[in-house]
Amino acid sequence: MMDTLKLDLVVASRTLADHGVIDAYGHASARSTANPQRYFMACNLAPELVTEGDILEYDLDSNALDANGRALYQERFIHGEIYKARPDVMAIVHNHSHAVVPFSCTNVALLPIFHMAAFIGLGLPLWDIREAQKGSDMLVKSPELGSHLAAALGAHPGVLMRGHGSTVVAENIPRAVGRSIYLDINARMQYQAIVLAGDGGSVSYMDEAEVAANVSWQNYERSWRLWKEKALGRLIEEKAAAARGSSR
Amino acid sequence: MMDTLKLDLVVASRTLADHGVIDAYGHASARSTANPQRYFMACNLAPELVTEGDILEYDLDSNALDANGRALYQERFIHGEIYKARPDVMAIVHNHSHAVVPFSCTNVALLPIFHMAAFIGLGLPLWDIREAQKGSDMLVKSPELGSHLAAALGAHPGVLMRGHGSTVVAENIPRAVGRSIYLDINARMQYQAIVLAGDGGSVSYMDEAEVAANVSWQNYERSWRLWKEKALGRLIEEKAAAARGSSR
Amino acid sequence: MMDTLKLDLVVASRTLADHGVIDAYGHASARSTANPQRYFMACNLAPELVTEGDILEYDLDSNALDANGRALYQERFIHGEIYKARPDVMAIVHNHSHAVVPFSCTNVALLPIFHMAAFIGLGLPLWDIREAQKGSDMLVKSPELGSHLAAALGAHPGVLMRGHGSTVVAENIPRAVGRSIYLDINARMQYQAIVLAGDGGSVSYMDEAEVAANVSWQNYERSWRLWKEKALGRLIEEKAAAARGSSR
Amino acid sequence: MMDTLKLDLVVASRTLADHGVIDAYGHASARSTANPQRYFMACNLAPELVTEGDILEYDLDSNALDANGRALYQERFIHGEIYKARPDVMAIVHNHSHAVVPFSCTNVALLPIFHMAAFIGLGLPLWDIREAQKGSDMLVKSPELGSHLAAALGAHPGVLMRGHGSTVVAENIPRAVGRSIYLDINARMQYQAIVLAGDGGSVSYMDEAEVAANVSWQNYERSWRLWKEKALGRLIEEKAAAARGSSR
Repeated sequence: MMDTLKLDLVVASRTLADHGVIDAYGHASARSTANPQRYFMACNLAPELVTEGDILEYDLDSNALDANGRALYQERFIHGEIYKARPDVMAIVHNHSHAVVPFSCTNVALLPIFHMAAFIGLGLPLWDIREAQKGSDMLVKSPELGSHLAAALGAHPGVLMRGHGSTVVAENIPRAVGRSIYLDINARMQYQAIVLAGDGGSVSYMDEAEVAANVSWQNYERSWRLWKEKALGRLIEEKAAAARGSSR
Repeated sequence: MMDTLKLDLVVASRTLADHGVIDAYGHASARSTANPQRYFMACNLAPELVTEGDILEYDLDSNALDANGRALYQERFIHGEIYKARPDVMAIVHNHSHAVVPFSCTNVALLPIFHMAAFIGLGLPLWDIREAQKGSDMLVKSPELGSHLAAALGAHPGVLMRGHGSTVVAENIPRAVGRSIYLDINARMQYQAIVLAGDGGSVSYMDEAEVAANVSWQNYERSWRLWKEKALGRLIEEKAAAARGSSR
Repeated sequence: MMDTLKLDLVVASRTLADHGVIDAYGHASARSTANPQRYFMACNLAPELVTEGDILEYDLDSNALDANGRALYQERFIHGEIYKARPDVMAIVHNHSHAVVPFSCTNVALLPIFHMAAFIGLGLPLWDIREAQKGSDMLVKSPELGSHLAAALGAHPGVLMRGHGSTVVAENIPRAVGRSIYLDINARMQYQAIVLAGDGGSVSYMDEAEVAANVSWQNYERSWRLWKEKALGRLIEEKAAAARGSSR
Repeated sequence: MMDTLKLDLVVASRTLADHGVIDAYGHASARSTANPQRYFMACNLAPELVTEGDILEYDLDSNALDANGRALYQERFIHGEIYKARPDVMAIVHNHSHAVVPFSCTNVALLPIFHMAAFIGLGLPLWDIREAQKGSDMLVKSPELGSHLAAALGAHPGVLMRGHGSTVVAENIPRAVGRSIYLDINARMQYQAIVLAGDGGSVSYMDEAEVAANVSWQNYERSWRLWKEKALGRLIEEKAAAARGSSR
């Protein structure tokens, strides 16, 4: 079971990188299904390099239990503090997707314009790190900052982080990954719709009932199967290339 | 003949995915040339994974005749109901192409700005699922919704779907695929032209006579040859990789 | 010598496709260095599939001398008529690059904002096919239309074609390819600069003296070496793959 | 030590090309750690073709000491003159990244909107070559122009060049590369934020204290490890392909 979770985190990391939602930064985690006081996440490594052996187990204070000297993500407290505050959350993606940042720096709210991103209709609060700490380096690198972010998240499916990106949560890994990818796409569509409508124009968003009807089941299952097949195919290629290299 | 059609649907699916017109969602279908009461479309699978063995035969009520337990696209009724209503239609693409959605959510009409997308000049009605059902999850997952969409389509070559994407129809598969790809490109060009022209500026579109002269022959034949060659090349590679994998 | 020219046209075709300046449509040609009354261009084929064996010789009336039944580009008259009208022109690229079309449909003139596209400062007239023929299908598929376009081009390095794209000319193939690629990039940069400057803002373009100093030598030589190395590398791979296929 | 530096310049060149920050033009250099009066940079070659054997040693007047007849970048004086004026600078990237040029041609200042590009908050002066030379071809191809640019740079981490691009400096290669990549990303985000905020809207940027806290440590280390692994992997593939080719 833990092995499935670790492999799913590898798939998640590489899929998010493939879609440009994360680059060398950003990370995906999952709460342990065996022990809700534990979560899994990679050591300090660019997501598209992550393999199963890089996935560590953390307690909710974000101490790694099996690091063996490997460096950790400075922002791991985002994950630990949200898992503390939100028992329903089983997976978290922290990302820097490009189209979302402009919304985090203006007063324009992200709204659900595209049905694949209906979850936005559940509300995405905006968190400004300045409210927790003046003159920070913008990173959520202490339990206090993680806890402050978790409070801003509240019961929502995600939180925008000013000048930084967002953190998206869900009941399972595919949903957290799918939400992160479609959040970025929705942001681009909404940007274009606002520009297209022009001053005084109006944009039509999903209404509350539509949001509720969609989020109740949307787990991006068909996408997940595609993403998994592609990521596993690449993993096999990488291992074959490494084997060729070491046999020379 | 059916084999050609199935292979063409594989080419269509992979080509649309290559161009970002569909991702894991969206689907292409073709009416049977042997029996106009039947159509072909993949089972529930991301289009870029589709091979000939995944293409099923459906009746016009969108029952699959040879599913053998495989799951079906929830939105297959888009296809069946349009084939019922439009005897001239031989191929359909339902897609989520990104540049089109903003037009579906504003009052700005898509118009033919680029000669490769002249068919837009035949008119693309806008369908809002709310007119058929309040509080839906946005999916066309019943015969009633499919039939309502088909009525909105009328005699046009496509229909925009608010907050969702579009459905494009044609007399053959290459034309349905080409129209879907150039619809997205036209949307991006038109968006930029509107922004560039600015308030009070004007944009020059194709006129009715130009549209009529172009759509009479435009089947994207040179593109189709390119797309087919690329898709078949990849299929061969995939089979070779699979063979290497199974012989290990 | 002709062999070099044919290979350079293969490199040109594939490079333009790589940069998204052409897709299945658009074409590159070169005047024969042996006989100025002849030019070379591919038969009717998507540019990224073109190999040396697909390059035909045409007279200036755009009759192919060695087609052997192969179909020809409908718009070959663009090339023949410009070679007639402009003895200085040795290479021509006709393309549909996406960022240029919006400029062809508005009253906003393309201007040289980026030093790599200084040639724009020599002037790019806008040609509307309607001035030559009402209700056309937008294609330059007769000697008369080609000649009308050539007249609009005049002594300039290129001409925009309303709702269609552009045709770029030069004294050699690398320059025609480089100009086509940077025309598209300049168009995107200029679009963004205009939007960024906003109403009442001003954008700084290259002045006449800067344009003159730059165009006198700009042949995109370092780019051409890169493009050639990449295109030839791919040609070798394709031949190897074809050889593997035929030996099975 | 010098070998490490040369390999790092190969990684830098290919990484910048991968990210679209440079194409065939643009270049990365590093000051010699053995002799501060020397720097290393490739001969005249597109960055994505550069291998260790192409890296030459230059004195600060930008004379190559080991060119052996190989052509040099015309704009090498950008590097030599900045190394003269700025003893703290150990690495320089000159680039044409697309999103930055519009800012260089308008009165809109680039500001740090994204925490990965905090260094922008240290100020990026705008240099217009016209202030040094009227009617230039836009290239910094003399010691005088290089020195004029270096004066405009002053003590800042980079300088915008009107209609051309930018030059970014740093205390080490990873920082110069990372800053160049995130400068382009920040420019795109800022552009979108300004458009999104609209007339009279406001955009929230990093403040001085946040900039100071971030730039003190930001070396893009996790990115550098990723970029290096990918670039070295490709180098190995290229050598293997070349070996196969020469053994035929």
